[in-house]
Amino acid sequence: MQNPQLKLFHNPQSRSAGVRILLEELGLAAEFELVDFKAPEKSPALLAANPLGKVPTLIADGVVVTEQVAIYQFLAELKPEAGLSPAVGEPLRGSYLRALAFYGSSFEPAMIDKALKRDAGQRGMSPYGDVAAVEQWLRSQLSVGPWFLGERFTAVDCLWGTALGWMTQFGLLEATAEISAYLQRFAARPAVQRARALDQALLAGQ
Amino acid sequence: MQNPQLKLFHNPQSRSAGVRILLEELGLAAEFELVDFKAPEKSPALLAANPLGKVPTLIADGVVVTEQVAIYQFLAELKPEAGLSPAVGEPLRGSYLRALAFYGSSFEPAMIDKALKRDAGQRGMSPYGDVAAVEQWLRSQLSVGPWFLGERFTAVDCLWGTALGWMTQFGLLEATAEISAYLQRFAARPAVQRARALDQALLAGQ
Ligand SMILES: N[C@@H](CCC(=O)N[C@@H](CS)C(=O)NCC(=O)O)C(=O)O
Ligand SMILES: N[C@@H](CCC(=O)N[C@@H](CS)C(=O)NCC(=O)O)C(=O)O
Repeated sequence: MQNPQLKLFHNPQSRSAGVRILLEELGLAAEFELVDFKAPEKSPALLAANPLGKVPTLIADGVVVTEQVAIYQFLAELKPEAGLSPAVGEPLRGSYLRALAFYGSSFEPAMIDKALKRDAGQRGMSPYGDVAAVEQWLRSQLSVGPWFLGERFTAVDCLWGTALGWMTQFGLLEATAEISAYLQRFAARPAVQRARALDQALLAGQ
Repeated sequence: MQNPQLKLFHNPQSRSAGVRILLEELGLAAEFELVDFKAPEKSPALLAANPLGKVPTLIADGVVVTEQVAIYQFLAELKPEAGLSPAVGEPLRGSYLRALAFYGSSFEPAMIDKALKRDAGQRGMSPYGDVAAVEQWLRSQLSVGPWFLGERFTAVDCLWGTALGWMTQFGLLEATAEISAYLQRFAARPAVQRARALDQALLAGQ
Protein backbone atom coordinates (compact mmCIF):
# COMPACT_ATOMS: atom_id res chain seq x y z
CA MET A 1 0.00 0.00 0.00
CA GLN A 2 1.99 2.97 -1.32
CA ASN A 3 0.25 6.29 -1.89
CA PRO A 4 -3.18 4.78 -1.34
CA GLN A 5 -6.26 6.55 -2.61
CA LEU A 6 -7.81 8.25 0.39
CA LYS A 7 -11.40 9.10 1.10
CA LEU A 8 -12.39 10.82 4.33
CA PHE A 9 -15.90 11.06 5.71
CA HIS A 10 -15.64 14.46 7.27
CA ASN A 11 -17.37 17.28 9.03
CA PRO A 12 -15.42 20.48 9.77
CA GLN A 13 -17.21 20.93 13.10
CA SER A 14 -16.25 17.57 14.50
CA ARG A 15 -13.52 15.21 15.58
CA SER A 16 -12.40 14.95 11.94
CA ALA A 17 -11.22 18.59 11.70
CA GLY A 18 -7.78 17.62 12.97
CA VAL A 19 -7.50 14.85 10.41
CA ARG A 20 -7.87 17.41 7.65
CA ILE A 21 -5.11 19.41 9.31
CA LEU A 22 -2.87 16.35 9.37
CA LEU A 23 -3.52 15.77 5.67
CA GLU A 24 -2.41 19.38 5.00
CA GLU A 25 0.68 18.93 7.17
CA LEU A 26 1.56 15.81 5.21
CA GLY A 27 0.65 17.25 1.81
CA LEU A 28 -1.62 14.28 1.13
CA ALA A 29 -4.61 14.60 -1.18
CA ALA A 30 -7.91 13.01 -0.26
CA GLU A 31 -11.49 12.99 -1.38
CA PHE A 32 -13.79 14.46 1.26
CA GLU A 33 -17.38 13.39 1.79
CA LEU A 34 -19.17 15.90 3.96
CA VAL A 35 -21.30 14.20 6.59
CA ASP A 36 -24.33 16.28 7.53
CA PHE A 37 -25.10 15.65 11.20
CA LYS A 38 -28.56 17.19 10.81
CA ALA A 39 -29.63 14.75 8.09
CA PRO A 40 -32.09 12.14 9.37
CA GLU A 41 -29.96 9.26 8.04
CA LYS A 42 -26.26 8.72 7.48
CA SER A 43 -25.23 7.95 3.89
CA PRO A 44 -25.17 4.25 2.93
CA ALA A 45 -21.50 4.63 1.97
CA LEU A 46 -20.58 5.80 5.47
CA LEU A 47 -22.66 3.14 7.20
CA ALA A 48 -21.20 0.42 4.99
CA ALA A 49 -17.71 1.49 6.05
CA ASN A 50 -18.50 2.24 9.67
CA PRO A 51 -21.75 0.94 11.13
CA LEU A 52 -21.37 3.43 14.01
CA GLY A 53 -21.86 6.19 11.42
CA LYS A 54 -19.04 8.22 12.94
CA VAL A 55 -16.53 10.66 11.53
CA PRO A 56 -13.66 10.58 11.00
CA THR A 57 -13.91 7.44 8.88
CA LEU A 58 -11.15 6.87 6.35
CA ILE A 59 -11.01 4.54 3.37
CA ALA A 60 -7.51 3.88 2.05
CA ASP A 61 -7.40 1.71 -1.07
CA GLY A 62 -10.56 -0.03 0.12
CA VAL A 63 -9.36 -0.61 3.69
CA VAL A 64 -11.54 1.07 6.30
CA VAL A 65 -9.87 2.84 9.19
CA THR A 66 -12.12 4.28 11.88
CA GLU A 67 -11.25 5.97 15.20
CA GLN A 68 -9.28 9.17 15.33
CA VAL A 69 -6.40 7.62 17.21
CA ALA A 70 -5.94 5.00 14.48
CA ILE A 71 -6.42 7.42 11.60
CA TYR A 72 -3.81 9.91 12.80
CA GLN A 73 -1.29 7.16 13.14
CA PHE A 74 -2.15 5.51 9.86
CA LEU A 75 -1.86 8.73 7.85
CA ALA A 76 1.34 9.95 9.49
CA GLU A 77 3.01 6.61 8.71
CA LEU A 78 2.23 6.95 5.01
CA LYS A 79 4.81 9.73 4.79
CA PRO A 80 7.68 8.86 7.12
CA GLU A 81 9.83 11.56 5.47
CA ALA A 82 7.52 14.23 6.96
CA GLY A 83 8.70 13.16 10.41
CA LEU A 84 5.28 13.37 12.04
CA SER A 85 5.38 9.71 13.11
CA PRO A 86 8.37 8.82 15.32
CA ALA A 87 9.63 5.51 13.95
CA VAL A 88 9.87 2.23 15.83
CA GLY A 89 13.12 2.29 17.81
CA GLU A 90 13.24 6.10 18.16
CA PRO A 91 13.23 7.20 21.81
CA LEU A 92 10.06 9.23 21.16
CA ARG A 93 8.10 6.21 19.94
CA GLY A 94 6.67 5.19 23.31
CA SER A 95 5.66 8.73 24.24
CA TYR A 96 4.01 9.14 20.85
CA LEU A 97 1.89 6.00 21.23
CA ARG A 98 1.07 6.96 24.80
CA ALA A 99 -0.11 10.47 23.89
CA LEU A 100 -2.41 9.08 21.19
CA ALA A 101 -3.87 6.25 23.26
CA PHE A 102 -4.22 8.46 26.32
CA TYR A 103 -6.34 10.87 24.34
CA GLY A 104 -8.92 8.28 23.34
CA SER A 105 -8.82 5.91 26.31
CA SER A 106 -8.45 8.32 29.24
CA PHE A 107 -8.77 11.97 28.31
CA GLU A 108 -11.99 11.86 26.30
CA PRO A 109 -13.74 9.63 28.84
CA ALA A 110 -12.70 12.07 31.58
CA MET A 111 -13.92 15.10 29.64
CA ILE A 112 -17.20 13.43 28.74
CA ASP A 113 -17.90 12.48 32.35
CA LYS A 114 -17.09 16.06 33.27
CA ALA A 115 -19.38 17.51 30.59
CA LEU A 116 -22.22 15.24 31.65
CA LYS A 117 -21.54 15.88 35.35
CA ARG A 118 -21.17 12.17 35.98
CA ASP A 119 -18.63 10.85 38.40
CA ALA A 120 -15.86 8.57 37.25
CA GLY A 121 -17.43 5.42 38.66
CA GLN A 122 -15.56 2.85 40.67
CA ARG A 123 -11.79 3.44 40.42
CA GLY A 124 -10.82 0.05 39.00
CA MET A 125 -13.37 0.22 36.23
CA SER A 126 -12.89 3.86 35.32
CA PRO A 127 -10.27 4.12 32.58
CA TYR A 128 -8.81 7.32 34.02
CA GLY A 129 -9.78 7.40 37.72
CA ASP A 130 -9.59 11.07 38.55
CA VAL A 131 -10.26 14.11 36.34
CA ALA A 132 -7.93 16.35 38.34
CA ALA A 133 -5.00 13.97 37.81
CA VAL A 134 -5.76 13.79 34.09
CA GLU A 135 -5.80 17.59 33.73
CA GLN A 136 -2.68 17.92 35.84
CA TRP A 137 -0.79 15.48 33.62
CA LEU A 138 -1.90 17.38 30.53
CA ARG A 139 -0.70 20.71 31.91
CA SER A 140 2.66 19.31 32.95
CA GLN A 141 3.06 17.71 29.52
CA LEU A 142 2.35 21.05 27.79
CA SER A 143 4.57 23.05 30.12
CA VAL A 144 7.66 21.70 28.33
CA GLY A 145 6.69 22.59 24.75
CA PRO A 146 6.67 23.90 22.23
CA TRP A 147 4.82 20.76 21.15
CA PHE A 148 3.07 17.93 22.94
CA LEU A 149 6.14 15.71 22.87
CA GLY A 150 8.66 18.54 23.25
CA GLU A 151 10.76 19.95 20.41
CA ARG A 152 9.25 17.85 17.67
CA PHE A 153 5.89 18.50 16.04
CA THR A 154 4.10 15.20 15.40
CA ALA A 155 0.68 13.86 14.43
CA VAL A 156 -0.13 13.91 18.14
CA ASP A 157 -0.30 17.70 17.92
CA CYS A 158 -2.91 17.60 15.16
CA LEU A 159 -5.11 15.56 17.49
CA TRP A 160 -4.47 17.46 20.72
CA GLY A 161 -4.28 20.89 19.07
CA THR A 162 -7.72 20.38 17.60
CA ALA A 163 -9.36 18.68 20.57
CA LEU A 164 -8.08 21.19 23.13
CA GLY A 165 -9.41 23.95 20.89
CA TRP A 166 -12.94 22.54 21.02
CA MET A 167 -12.78 21.76 24.70
CA THR A 168 -11.63 25.19 25.79
CA GLN A 169 -14.19 26.83 23.48
CA PHE A 170 -16.94 24.74 25.04
CA GLY A 171 -15.72 25.79 28.49
CA LEU A 172 -15.09 22.16 29.36
CA LEU A 173 -11.44 22.72 30.04
CA GLU A 174 -9.86 25.81 31.49
CA ALA A 175 -7.66 27.66 29.00
CA THR A 176 -4.65 27.82 31.31
CA ALA A 177 -1.51 29.66 30.25
CA GLU A 178 0.14 26.43 28.97
CA ILE A 179 -2.92 25.41 27.00
CA SER A 180 -3.54 28.84 25.48
CA ALA A 181 0.08 29.22 24.41
CA TYR A 182 0.02 25.76 22.86
CA LEU A 183 -3.18 26.52 20.95
CA GLN A 184 -1.72 29.78 19.67
CA ARG A 185 1.40 28.07 18.37
CA PHE A 186 -0.78 25.46 16.73
CA ALA A 187 -3.11 27.99 15.09
CA ALA A 188 -0.11 29.86 13.65
CA ARG A 189 1.06 26.90 11.54
CA PRO A 190 0.50 27.42 7.80
CA ALA A 191 -1.00 23.95 7.32
CA VAL A 192 -3.47 24.56 10.14
CA GLN A 193 -4.53 27.83 8.57
CA ARG A 194 -4.88 26.24 5.13
CA ALA A 195 -6.96 23.36 6.48
CA ARG A 196 -9.24 25.69 8.42
CA ALA A 197 -9.77 27.92 5.38
CA LEU A 198 -10.63 24.89 3.26
CA ASP A 199 -13.10 23.75 5.90
CA GLN A 200 -14.75 27.15 6.05
CA ALA A 201 -15.16 27.11 2.28
CA LEU A 202 -16.64 23.63 2.51
CA LEU A 203 -19.19 24.79 5.09
CA ALA A 204 -20.00 27.94 3.12
CA GLY A 205 -20.64 25.92 -0.03
CA GLN A 206 -23.01 23.53 1.70
CA MET B 1 16.16 1.38 21.50
CA GLN B 2 16.94 -2.27 20.78
CA ASN B 3 16.00 -4.92 23.34
CA PRO B 4 15.14 -2.32 25.95
CA GLN B 5 14.97 -3.26 29.61
CA LEU B 6 11.31 -3.67 30.45
CA LYS B 7 9.51 -3.16 33.72
CA LEU B 8 5.77 -3.68 33.97
CA PHE B 9 3.57 -2.47 36.81
CA HIS B 10 1.13 -5.31 36.84
CA ASN B 11 -1.81 -6.97 38.51
CA PRO B 12 -3.01 -10.34 37.23
CA GLN B 13 -6.65 -9.41 37.89
CA SER B 14 -6.63 -6.30 35.78
CA ARG B 15 -6.19 -4.76 32.39
CA SER B 16 -2.52 -5.71 32.48
CA ALA B 17 -3.15 -9.49 32.31
CA GLY B 18 -3.17 -9.37 28.51
CA VAL B 19 0.11 -7.51 28.45
CA ARG B 20 1.76 -10.39 30.28
CA ILE B 21 0.28 -12.72 27.65
CA LEU B 22 1.74 -10.59 24.89
CA LEU B 23 5.16 -10.70 26.56
CA GLU B 24 4.91 -14.52 26.58
CA GLU B 25 3.81 -14.59 22.95
CA LEU B 26 6.82 -12.45 22.04
CA GLY B 27 9.25 -14.27 24.32
CA LEU B 28 10.25 -10.98 25.94
CA ALA B 29 11.53 -10.87 29.50
CA ALA B 30 10.37 -8.16 31.88
CA GLU B 31 10.54 -7.26 35.51
CA PHE B 32 7.10 -7.28 37.11
CA GLU B 33 6.06 -5.06 39.97
CA LEU B 34 2.84 -6.30 41.49
CA VAL B 35 0.44 -3.46 42.20
CA ASP B 36 -1.82 -4.20 45.13
CA PHE B 37 -5.16 -2.52 44.52
CA LYS B 38 -6.16 -2.93 48.16
CA ALA B 39 -3.17 -0.99 49.48
CA PRO B 40 -4.11 2.48 50.70
CA GLU B 41 -1.48 4.15 48.52
CA LYS B 42 0.14 3.35 45.19
CA SER B 43 3.92 2.90 45.23
CA PRO B 44 5.95 6.07 44.62
CA ALA B 45 7.63 4.35 41.66
CA LEU B 46 4.28 3.79 39.96
CA LEU B 47 3.02 7.29 40.70
CA ALA B 48 6.26 8.82 39.43
CA ALA B 49 5.82 6.99 36.14
CA ASN B 50 2.06 7.38 35.87
CA PRO B 51 0.36 9.98 38.04
CA LEU B 52 -2.97 8.23 37.36
CA GLY B 53 -1.59 5.23 39.28
CA LYS B 54 -2.93 2.83 36.67
CA VAL B 55 -1.79 -0.54 35.40
CA PRO B 56 -0.58 -1.50 32.92
CA THR B 57 2.29 0.98 33.11
CA LEU B 58 5.46 0.05 31.28
CA ILE B 59 8.95 1.45 31.56
CA ALA B 60 11.24 0.66 28.64
CA ASP B 61 14.80 1.90 29.04
CA GLY B 62 13.50 4.75 31.15
CA VAL B 63 10.70 5.76 28.76
CA VAL B 64 7.25 5.50 30.30
CA VAL B 65 4.44 4.02 28.24
CA THR B 66 0.97 4.02 29.77
CA GLU B 67 -2.38 2.96 28.28
CA GLN B 68 -3.04 -0.59 27.18
CA VAL B 69 -3.55 0.37 23.56
CA ALA B 70 -0.12 2.02 23.42
CA ILE B 71 1.64 -0.74 25.35
CA TYR B 72 0.40 -3.58 23.14
CA GLN B 73 1.57 -1.75 20.08
CA PHE B 74 4.88 -0.72 21.57
CA LEU B 75 5.79 -4.24 22.69
CA ALA B 76 4.68 -5.99 19.50
CA GLU B 77 6.85 -3.62 17.46
CA LEU B 78 9.95 -4.55 19.45
CA LYS B 79 9.91 -7.97 17.79
CA PRO B 80 8.75 -7.52 14.20
CA GLU B 81 9.93 -11.05 13.39
CA ALA B 82 7.17 -12.45 15.63
CA GLY B 83 4.64 -11.04 13.18
CA LEU B 84 2.24 -9.79 15.85
CA SER B 85 2.42 -6.20 14.57
CA PRO B 86 1.43 -5.81 10.91
CA ALA B 87 4.02 -3.47 9.41
CA VAL B 88 3.39 -0.10 7.81
CA GLY B 89 2.34 -0.72 4.22
CA GLU B 90 0.86 -4.17 4.87
CA PRO B 91 -2.83 -4.33 3.97
CA LEU B 92 -3.66 -5.36 7.54
CA ARG B 93 -2.06 -2.26 9.05
CA GLY B 94 -5.18 -0.08 9.00
CA SER B 95 -7.40 -2.79 10.47
CA TYR B 96 -4.82 -3.45 13.18
CA LEU B 97 -4.69 0.19 14.27
CA ARG B 98 -8.47 0.40 14.08
CA ALA B 99 -9.03 -2.66 16.29
CA LEU B 100 -6.68 -1.30 18.95
CA ALA B 101 -8.06 2.25 18.95
CA PHE B 102 -11.64 1.04 18.79
CA TYR B 103 -11.10 -0.98 21.95
CA GLY B 104 -10.00 2.01 24.03
CA SER B 105 -11.95 4.83 22.42
CA SER B 106 -15.30 3.18 21.69
CA PHE B 107 -15.68 -0.30 23.14
CA GLU B 108 -14.60 0.36 26.73
CA PRO B 109 -16.65 3.56 26.97
CA ALA B 110 -19.68 1.61 25.70
CA MET B 111 -19.15 -1.25 28.15
CA ILE B 112 -18.62 1.12 31.07
CA ASP B 113 -21.79 3.06 30.32
CA LYS B 114 -23.57 -0.28 30.10
CA ALA B 115 -22.12 -1.51 33.40
CA LEU B 116 -23.08 1.70 35.15
CA LYS B 117 -26.50 1.77 33.46
CA ARG B 118 -25.82 5.21 32.06
CA ASP B 119 -27.00 6.19 28.65
CA ALA B 120 -24.53 7.15 25.96
CA GLY B 121 -25.23 10.87 26.21
CA GLN B 122 -25.79 13.11 23.24
CA ARG B 123 -24.82 11.33 20.00
CA GLY B 124 -22.24 13.80 18.78
CA MET B 125 -20.37 13.81 22.06
CA SER B 126 -20.56 10.09 22.75
CA PRO B 127 -17.49 8.39 21.31
CA TYR B 128 -19.48 5.33 20.24
CA GLY B 129 -23.12 6.44 19.96
CA ASP B 130 -24.96 3.18 20.34
CA VAL B 131 -24.08 0.07 22.38
CA ALA B 132 -26.04 -2.26 20.12
CA ALA B 133 -24.09 -1.11 17.06
CA VAL B 134 -20.82 -1.59 18.92
CA GLU B 135 -21.68 -5.15 19.95
CA GLN B 136 -22.96 -5.94 16.48
CA TRP B 137 -19.69 -4.79 14.92
CA LEU B 138 -17.74 -6.92 17.37
CA ARG B 139 -19.75 -10.04 16.58
CA SER B 140 -19.45 -9.56 12.84
CA GLN B 141 -15.71 -9.01 13.23
CA LEU B 142 -15.33 -12.26 15.21
CA SER B 143 -17.56 -14.26 12.87
CA VAL B 144 -14.72 -14.41 10.32
CA GLY B 145 -11.97 -15.75 12.55
CA PRO B 146 -10.08 -17.55 13.70
CA TRP B 147 -8.54 -14.31 15.03
CA PHE B 148 -9.73 -10.76 15.40
CA LEU B 149 -8.24 -9.69 12.09
CA GLY B 150 -8.84 -13.00 10.31
CA GLU B 151 -6.16 -15.61 9.63
CA ARG B 152 -3.36 -13.85 11.42
CA PHE B 153 -2.91 -13.76 15.19
CA THR B 154 -1.71 -10.31 16.27
CA ALA B 155 -1.23 -8.23 19.40
CA VAL B 156 -4.85 -7.16 18.96
CA ASP B 157 -5.88 -10.65 20.06
CA CYS B 158 -3.97 -10.38 23.34
CA LEU B 159 -6.00 -7.26 24.11
CA TRP B 160 -9.40 -8.47 22.93
CA GLY B 161 -8.94 -12.07 24.08
CA THR B 162 -8.25 -10.85 27.59
CA ALA B 163 -10.85 -8.09 27.74
CA LEU B 164 -13.68 -10.20 26.32
CA GLY B 165 -12.82 -12.85 28.89
CA TRP B 166 -13.36 -10.41 31.76
CA MET B 167 -16.44 -8.88 30.25
CA THR B 168 -18.24 -12.15 29.63
CA GLN B 169 -17.26 -13.38 33.11
CA PHE B 170 -18.73 -10.23 34.65
CA GLY B 171 -21.90 -10.78 32.64
CA LEU B 172 -21.41 -7.44 30.95
CA LEU B 173 -21.32 -8.94 27.53
CA GLU B 174 -23.23 -11.95 26.31
CA ALA B 175 -20.99 -14.92 25.50
CA THR B 176 -22.42 -15.46 22.04
CA ALA B 177 -21.24 -18.38 19.92
CA GLU B 178 -18.66 -16.25 18.09
CA ILE B 179 -17.29 -14.80 21.30
CA SER B 180 -17.12 -18.14 23.14
CA ALA B 181 -15.37 -19.85 20.27
CA TYR B 182 -12.88 -17.02 20.03
CA LEU B 183 -12.16 -17.15 23.76
CA GLN B 184 -11.64 -20.91 23.60
CA ARG B 185 -9.16 -20.62 20.76
CA PHE B 186 -7.36 -17.91 22.69
CA ALA B 187 -7.23 -19.90 25.92
CA ALA B 188 -5.75 -22.88 24.07
CA ARG B 189 -2.60 -21.03 23.00
CA PRO B 190 0.51 -22.19 24.85
CA ALA B 191 1.69 -18.65 25.59
CA VAL B 192 -1.69 -17.77 27.08
CA GLN B 193 -1.54 -20.82 29.32
CA ARG B 194 2.02 -20.04 30.38
CA ALA B 195 1.17 -16.42 31.19
CA ARG B 196 -1.89 -17.41 33.20
CA ALA B 197 0.06 -19.98 35.18
CA LEU B 198 2.75 -17.41 35.96
CA ASP B 199 0.08 -14.98 37.09
CA GLN B 200 -1.53 -17.55 39.36
CA ALA B 201 1.83 -18.27 40.93
CA LEU B 202 2.34 -14.55 41.42
CA LEU B 203 -1.00 -14.21 43.18
CA ALA B 204 -0.38 -17.31 45.29
CA GLY B 205 2.99 -15.98 46.43
CA GLN B 206 1.56 -12.66 47.51
N1 LIG C 1 -14.51 7.09 18.95
C1 LIG C 1 -14.64 7.89 17.76
C2 LIG C 1 -15.62 9.02 17.97
C3 LIG C 1 -16.05 9.69 16.67
C4 LIG C 1 -17.26 10.58 16.89
O1 LIG C 1 -17.99 10.46 17.89
N2 LIG C 1 -17.53 11.50 15.94
C5 LIG C 1 -18.69 12.37 16.02
C6 LIG C 1 -18.33 13.78 15.57
S1 LIG C 1 -17.22 14.60 16.65
C7 LIG C 1 -19.78 11.91 15.09
O2 LIG C 1 -19.51 11.28 14.06
N3 LIG C 1 -21.01 12.26 15.42
C8 LIG C 1 -22.16 12.00 14.61
C9 LIG C 1 -22.99 10.88 15.15
O3 LIG C 1 -22.60 10.21 16.09
O4 LIG C 1 -24.06 10.68 14.58
C10 LIG C 1 -13.27 8.43 17.37
O5 LIG C 1 -12.43 8.57 18.26
O6 LIG C 1 -13.03 8.69 16.19
N1 LIG D 1 -7.00 3.82 30.32
C1 LIG D 1 -6.17 2.84 31.00
C2 LIG D 1 -6.96 2.15 32.10
C3 LIG D 1 -6.12 1.38 33.07
C4 LIG D 1 -6.87 0.99 34.32
O1 LIG D 1 -7.92 1.56 34.63
N2 LIG D 1 -6.37 0.00 35.09
C5 LIG D 1 -7.00 -0.42 36.32
C6 LIG D 1 -6.92 -1.92 36.45
S1 LIG D 1 -7.91 -2.77 35.28
C7 LIG D 1 -6.25 0.13 37.52
O2 LIG D 1 -5.06 0.39 37.46
N3 LIG D 1 -6.97 0.29 38.62
C8 LIG D 1 -6.43 0.70 39.88
C9 LIG D 1 -6.75 2.12 40.21
O3 LIG D 1 -7.34 2.83 39.37
O4 LIG D 1 -6.44 2.52 41.32
C10 LIG D 1 -5.66 1.83 30.00
O5 LIG D 1 -6.32 1.63 28.97
O6 LIG D 1 -4.60 1.25 30.21
